Amino acid sequence: MRKTIECVANFSTSERKSVEAILGEIRRTPQAYLLDYTYDDYYNRLVVSFAGTEESVLQAALSASSRAIDLIDMRKHKGQHPRLGAVDVVPFIPIRNTTIDDCVKVSKEFGRTLAAQHSVPIYLYGAAATKPERSDLDWIRKGEYEALAEMIVQPDRRPDFGPAEPHATAGATITGARKVMAGFNVNLGTSDLSTAKKIARALHAGKGGFATVKAMGAEIPGKGITQIGMSITDFEKTPLYRVFELLKLEADRYNVPILGSEFCGMAPLQSVLAIAAYYLKIDNLEANRILEVAVQNAIEKGDQGDQK
Amino acid sequence: MRKTIECVANFSTSERKSVEAILGEIRRTPQAYLLDYTYDDYYNRLVVSFAGTEESVLQAALSASSRAIDLIDMRKHKGQHPRLGAVDVVPFIPIRNTTIDDCVKVSKEFGRTLAAQHSVPIYLYGAAATKPERSDLDWIRKGEYEALAEMIVQPDRRPDFGPAEPHATAGATITGARKVMAGFNVNLGTSDLSTAKKIARALHAGKGGFATVKAMGAEIPGKGITQIGMSITDFEKTPLYRVFELLKLEADRYNVPILGSEFCGMAPLQSVLAIAAYYLKIDNLEANRILEVAVQNAIEKGDQGDQK
Repeated sequence: MRKTIECVANFSTSERKSVEAILGEIRRTPQAYLLDYTYDDYYNRLVVSFAGTEESVLQAALSASSRAIDLIDMRKHKGQHPRLGAVDVVPFIPIRNTTIDDCVKVSKEFGRTLAAQHSVPIYLYGAAATKPERSDLDWIRKGEYEALAEMIVQPDRRPDFGPAEPHATAGATITGARKVMAGFNVNLGTSDLSTAKKIARALHAGKGGFATVKAMGAEIPGKGITQIGMSITDFEKTPLYRVFELLKLEADRYNVPILGSEFCGMAPLQSVLAIAAYYLKIDNLEANRILEVAVQNAIEKGDQGDQK
Repeated sequence: MRKTIECVANFSTSERKSVEAILGEIRRTPQAYLLDYTYDDYYNRLVVSFAGTEESVLQAALSASSRAIDLIDMRKHKGQHPRLGAVDVVPFIPIRNTTIDDCVKVSKEFGRTLAAQHSVPIYLYGAAATKPERSDLDWIRKGEYEALAEMIVQPDRRPDFGPAEPHATAGATITGARKVMAGFNVNLGTSDLSTAKKIARALHAGKGGFATVKAMGAEIPGKGITQIGMSITDFEKTPLYRVFELLKLEADRYNVPILGSEFCGMAPLQSVLAIAAYYLKIDNLEANRILEVAVQNAIEKGDQGDQK
């Protein structure tokens, strides 16, 4: 099976022309495949998923990031999602026939090249982190873009590549390697942000919630509702049904109805299977029990056998 | 994308040597891929899923059926599942880049050949049925193997291929084409078969239940429990969460706990996504939102583009 990695790049813009220009760079990179993108004005953030070979994904990430640095001015940026720069965070993820170490290498190559081309400071996070505390995005993003100039000169916060001062319009960029994770948003039938924040805290690892969950409350302007935005970094240890049921419990406490949910970005198959298995009391629902997956795997295996 | 069909063949045996011989025929057919098989003593039935090109699946189905006819003696067969013959029912199912009409053609070729080789009477059902009532398996199986000799001579029950008399040891075979369906079994914490049958009736199309569901109650010997065995022929119209919740409602009525569930055979992806979407209040969860599916599709699309 072909070596495949994914990149889920986060850019600090929701402005149409910039979004199209960034997506265009990925689309025109050979063997890099755009899987999904979302952006909205309240986060003021573009999240793009693309996949392909290591070389093609690295190339697409560099082209898209160069374009974003040219187009985005962080001095004018406002948004509800924490961010450090125009190219905020660029994780590389092993998908098929690749390891997390392969992705660490790609992320270092990405960081080194972007720093050299644009004089933007680069932090390595996740499995690429050079110190334990740097594996955590929140630690790196502390104070966000606005505090970057004073934070970056602290001895323990020197960037891994590039100058120890912010890029004037692009701030700093975080890159690294991580496993596949699930992004999941739940809309609440209340406009009260303080209630949403209370519910988010109950789930958030840093506040005593689930160890692999980050959760934040945010307003969705113009709709009179709020949203719990979550990332579940290990959905095998912390399955989504458990997160959802606890969220429901906390929302019930404040008589807040759950209006609906959505995956943010791509949904990993195993995270969805675990949800179905729980509610229908199926002991074990593995990917190779799914018809389409089993057929694909059987054909690929057969092709390999035929080639021998 | 390669043309692919599936076959889910049902043989009236659970005897080890026969099971292995039948599976062996499928395994040794080039480009036919064994996906899954299950068999048990209380149904006394082997269900085998395999996929591949039209030619390879037809060939594997014929070889396996010939072997089954040689090995199985219906005069000695007992089991809780209705059946008409040694090779009981052999549906062909379009999976990728094929239509139900393609599968009708394959099923007719299968029936014609098996009748010619073994003088076994063949009924066409599903989308291959030659009369409306024959699209229904239950209608064809009326009276089962034991009543076949008297049923088959009735003018409206003449077989579509082969002689109008049962094969002495193999009975008759039903073949045809159908869409992908879901097989789903739920174990009940009661040994009382009459309660299980009552719950099954509430779900069964023929008794006023869901229009696309067939449900039966069965004992699981030695375990002191019963099972509701179901097939959902159109899981888009009748999603599995709805079937499961109604089953739960009826079981609650008799204070019967649900011990667990399982897919019988392969689980169609869309049927699983619909379960997860319902319980987590996701408006619409489509296959191309699943990471692994989207990556596979993007690569195949890219390969086709590259070949141009």
